[in-house]
Amino acid sequence: MNEEGMDLALPALRPPDEDVRFQTQARLDSLTKPVGSLGRLEEVAANYLAITGSVSAPRLDSVVCTLAADHGVTSEGVSAYPQSVTAQMVKNFVHGGAAVNVLARHAEASLRLVDMGVAEDLRACAGLLDHKIAYGTKNFLCEPAMSREQALQSIQVGMDLAKAAWADGKNLIAVGEMGIGNTTSSAAIVSVLTGQSVEKVTGRGTGVDDRTLKRKISVIEQALELHHPSSSDALEVLTKVGGFEIGGMAGLMLGAAACRVPVVLDGFITGASALLAVALEPRCREYLIASHLSREPGHRIVLDHLRLDPLLDLRMRLGEGTGACLAVTLIHAALKIYREMATFDEARVSGALPQS
Amino acid sequence: MNEEGMDLALPALRPPDEDVRFQTQARLDSLTKPVGSLGRLEEVAANYLAITGSVSAPRLDSVVCTLAADHGVTSEGVSAYPQSVTAQMVKNFVHGGAAVNVLARHAEASLRLVDMGVAEDLRACAGLLDHKIAYGTKNFLCEPAMSREQALQSIQVGMDLAKAAWADGKNLIAVGEMGIGNTTSSAAIVSVLTGQSVEKVTGRGTGVDDRTLKRKISVIEQALELHHPSSSDALEVLTKVGGFEIGGMAGLMLGAAACRVPVVLDGFITGASALLAVALEPRCREYLIASHLSREPGHRIVLDHLRLDPLLDLRMRLGEGTGACLAVTLIHAALKIYREMATFDEARVSGALPQS
Repeated sequence: MNEEGMDLALPALRPPDEDVRFQTQARLDSLTKPVGSLGRLEEVAANYLAITGSVSAPRLDSVVCTLAADHGVTSEGVSAYPQSVTAQMVKNFVHGGAAVNVLARHAEASLRLVDMGVAEDLRACAGLLDHKIAYGTKNFLCEPAMSREQALQSIQVGMDLAKAAWADGKNLIAVGEMGIGNTTSSAAIVSVLTGQSVEKVTGRGTGVDDRTLKRKISVIEQALELHHPSSSDALEVLTKVGGFEIGGMAGLMLGAAACRVPVVLDGFITGASALLAVALEPRCREYLIASHLSREPGHRIVLDHLRLDPLLDLRMRLGEGTGACLAVTLIHAALKIYREMATFDEARVSGALPQS
Repeated sequence: MNEEGMDLALPALRPPDEDVRFQTQARLDSLTKPVGSLGRLEEVAANYLAITGSVSAPRLDSVVCTLAADHGVTSEGVSAYPQSVTAQMVKNFVHGGAAVNVLARHAEASLRLVDMGVAEDLRACAGLLDHKIAYGTKNFLCEPAMSREQALQSIQVGMDLAKAAWADGKNLIAVGEMGIGNTTSSAAIVSVLTGQSVEKVTGRGTGVDDRTLKRKISVIEQALELHHPSSSDALEVLTKVGGFEIGGMAGLMLGAAACRVPVVLDGFITGASALLAVALEPRCREYLIASHLSREPGHRIVLDHLRLDPLLDLRMRLGEGTGACLAVTLIHAALKIYREMATFDEARVSGALPQS
């Protein structure tokens, strides 16, 4: 296949069903509580159902998709951890010992682990889906992180994963990631797509010190000077400074939206993926649920740009899908409220008085 | 018994165990995640264990205690709902159709429903604990809401409920309430105990309009002028402008703290109870977990006064214990993280690099 001739076959997205949102709110208003008094839980229920297009609230069958990959830029010393930790943590996921394992169980969600491009052969890991595109990206300080073909491939893998989850009956997809160096790649993407300075959108990731933070900012600034990715070409941004898991998650979001499955974002890196997905297909935004506000300073900038309001602010900054899992439990709660509460009529409770 | 001679036999409270908090944090730091990256989940786990005084994290066995009572001041037209709604909602609780029923099930918590003083005979309600002190308080615009003996009785009932829950093996107590008019009583208490103006701490409760809000503020101001409750005498405040469920919840907090059982607060009204409990025994504060920030404007003032930082802000304003239930799920998550995650050694994951 000719690389230049390749293009993304993006799915057609319908907007959420506003009639369903209205009907959902009408039912919520008939339940035995003051109108609107469950606040964002009501908003979450109405939004979930508007996305799915049905007023019938299903039992949630959620999946957390955690995509892992390595980043060539790690060789510039931008992380507190060595690159080998990506593969070590993937093995930890496979054995059930990481935070996302615990919190996915807590959220009654299954966990789908995907190797998008870890710099180690992990084919022996049972339960890990092998979609390795390469053994890590290239160091984008020197050359593009990946080829355009690889960028397309990462998005396609994500879209296929979403479609497979939907075919399995999953009705909520949470995204998460693991990849030493991926806050560096994400900060580069976020800077380009939001127009904010590198300094503003770059944080401490796993917890680097002041000196390493300075180096990280400088590496990103140099890379953007070298590559000049166009802010109007999301694929170019992904190609030049992205990551395989970041492209994969963007594809997951697009694929889920095409299947009318709501997507729960996690932290800063999933936010960078969301910016890519929304740049590729603006309507995708309406299918995204912001789970939490990460401590990574650029995350607020991402969410503001996406006009998404996070449900939680627990000062977390771990990634993996951990914040998304906690939001999944809130979505469970919201749908249970909608399904299980009695109406004023059913419970024979008097409504509000006409006020004088 | 001579009323003047009565006094509260307050339990002796130990401070949380700081050594346990330190050991808990040390274990959290050994788990496969960057140090501190689970943010407030880590703080919640350490705080929970420091309160219980043991580094061994139990499986949570939580109870939501929802206390109901009526308020004589309702006859002044301070609520959007008629007084009869208190009893109607208690029946709704008993039948499982209210928001707190749904969310307690969601949080895997049992629900203990207590009649502290509903203005209707509810002895026929199966599953409702009958601790009725009177058929509602008096209208505190004209006379003290209750006698000093009733105030003491309400606190004693709460302390006994906590002790019974502890004896049943409950290791987390969430509090909630139902009582038409109880934001009026709570605003009066909060104004006295925080020194803030009535206007600042009074909100729309179930959703009153501007005119009713003005009346509500005026009623509270007149009542405080009439009774002059002393801010240094919590029992006097409860007697003059309080409610039976409000005193009961203060007792629950004191009793739980005496048993080293953490207490999860709900919204504004439970906040008023917490102010009373902490005024009676300042050390009680350290046993309280703030679940969420209510939309009721005085709630922020209460939490600031108590130096408590709410876990959630979902713009809820329902009460019943609904916000507390959602925080219980976060406490579950925090303790699971502590119990179930692998350490760096166990998972053979490399720690952070020495930074340059």
